[in-house]
Amino acid sequence: MSISKDKRFLIVGLGLIGGSYAAGLKEQGYHVGALTRSRKTIDYALSKGMIDEGTTELSKGFISSYDIVVFSLYPKTFIDWIAANQDLLKPGALITDATGVKCSVVYKVQEILRRDLEFVPAHPMAGRETSGVEYAASKIFKGANYIVTPTDANTEKGIEDVKEIGRILGFGRISVLSPEKHDEMIGFLSQLTHCIAVSLMTCKDSEDLASFSGDSFRDLTRIAKINDEMWPELFMMNKKELLSQMDLFASQFSKLRQALVDDDVEGMRMMMRLSTERRKLFDKKI
Amino acid sequence: MSISKDKRFLIVGLGLIGGSYAAGLKEQGYHVGALTRSRKTIDYALSKGMIDEGTTELSKGFISSYDIVVFSLYPKTFIDWIAANQDLLKPGALITDATGVKCSVVYKVQEILRRDLEFVPAHPMAGRETSGVEYAASKIFKGANYIVTPTDANTEKGIEDVKEIGRILGFGRISVLSPEKHDEMIGFLSQLTHCIAVSLMTCKDSEDLASFSGDSFRDLTRIAKINDEMWPELFMMNKKELLSQMDLFASQFSKLRQALVDDDVEGMRMMMRLSTERRKLFDKKI
Repeated sequence: MSISKDKRFLIVGLGLIGGSYAAGLKEQGYHVGALTRSRKTIDYALSKGMIDEGTTELSKGFISSYDIVVFSLYPKTFIDWIAANQDLLKPGALITDATGVKCSVVYKVQEILRRDLEFVPAHPMAGRETSGVEYAASKIFKGANYIVTPTDANTEKGIEDVKEIGRILGFGRISVLSPEKHDEMIGFLSQLTHCIAVSLMTCKDSEDLASFSGDSFRDLTRIAKINDEMWPELFMMNKKELLSQMDLFASQFSKLRQALVDDDVEGMRMMMRLSTERRKLFDKKI
Repeated sequence: MSISKDKRFLIVGLGLIGGSYAAGLKEQGYHVGALTRSRKTIDYALSKGMIDEGTTELSKGFISSYDIVVFSLYPKTFIDWIAANQDLLKPGALITDATGVKCSVVYKVQEILRRDLEFVPAHPMAGRETSGVEYAASKIFKGANYIVTPTDANTEKGIEDVKEIGRILGFGRISVLSPEKHDEMIGFLSQLTHCIAVSLMTCKDSEDLASFSGDSFRDLTRIAKINDEMWPELFMMNKKELLSQMDLFASQFSKLRQALVDDDVEGMRMMMRLSTERRKLFDKKI
């Protein structure tokens, strides 16, 4: 199954991820338009050949000329956009997104969406420590995970088309997960790790230690440089799941601490052996 | 100040670090001998030109022919070796080590050491996720930190000679710290990070998530593959300091958790901004 080359893609929100979608789709020969807040962003993307056209205005003539619309906005902004502007979309348009949390976005959007539109949610698990269209590039998707999180409201055809977008963009692995399973996974693998990195980086006035730090500390804190607008919103929109992942971790950390307090060398060794075994599984999948 | 080329180095414990000392010193033209547990290790090191000679036996004739002795053993083994065998060492020999914890080793060894010997402790902050002489190579020291941790029992000459060993081996930065400051630093930068990685890797049955993990989780768990013989001993020998670093982290993690519970977006953002600022300092020092 493929998406015919005369289908027109609109990217709403031309940042790092939206810009990379645009670049990747253009490279594969599709017509790509952009709707974004800043004229400067559009001019940049035009100059780099990442889009065919772009606007900052909510024009029905422009927006309704697109068959497939990719929303690459913060979660709340995406929901608000649909609530306020969905009448501008082409009848029968296919909608997808790049939002990093699912349950609190997907059900809300599907609930308020016009009956003739279909929204198939997706999460491209790619990113950089930087943001903005200037850092966008189709190569950030190469080898990365692309997860489609459909619900009962979706059709087979819609799900297949959104999986196909992942293939067109060159993702390494296309998967399908429920929104719930996605949010548990992302709470553990991504949000919890960012909480740990931020806590480690801020728990001690460590400036005089910078020159002594080796790879361990650098590895654990690489993601401690964090977008402080986006992440609190992502945390809040996955609050229950993230809290439960944080508690799992805190409880295990406390167990290791207690083993040390008790001089329980065998207890520490058992955790380390399990840790070593499990980490090996993550090597193989690279 | 330099160490004349006719000085003879003995490496006690020919593993990853001991073998890398041997290789680096040989490359700089020094005579290098090895005392280690396994004949196979010696044969390997001889075949690779990492040492000039080696033995598994506690022979006074052999051991007392060396001017400078580098101990690359587990902490307790090192202390026990000195207690049992120091009569085999050459009168006036200079002793150094590669032990990763200092207070609980340094004062004990200096207390029991023969008066004609000098022990100047050092910690080469280099390593790999693997162990054994087969992985030894002088290049693991290039650009790394080498920390000398002298006490009042040391002489200027001894301290200078042990700093010079770091320079001969090509370390990127040679520093001097008190044993106490060293153990605080290593408790925070290295031991705490390993505790976090092990806890994260073992807190959840995450095997079905391996294929979804991106760089964040991989970075935070790289060091979760851990030598379960060495690390519990290092933790135990730095127990008080490590517990205090663990508590600093746990308290900050708990603060971030509370901000999420309280919907305190501004509190989360403040931590993230501090985190981002501080992490930048660690980039510059690479």
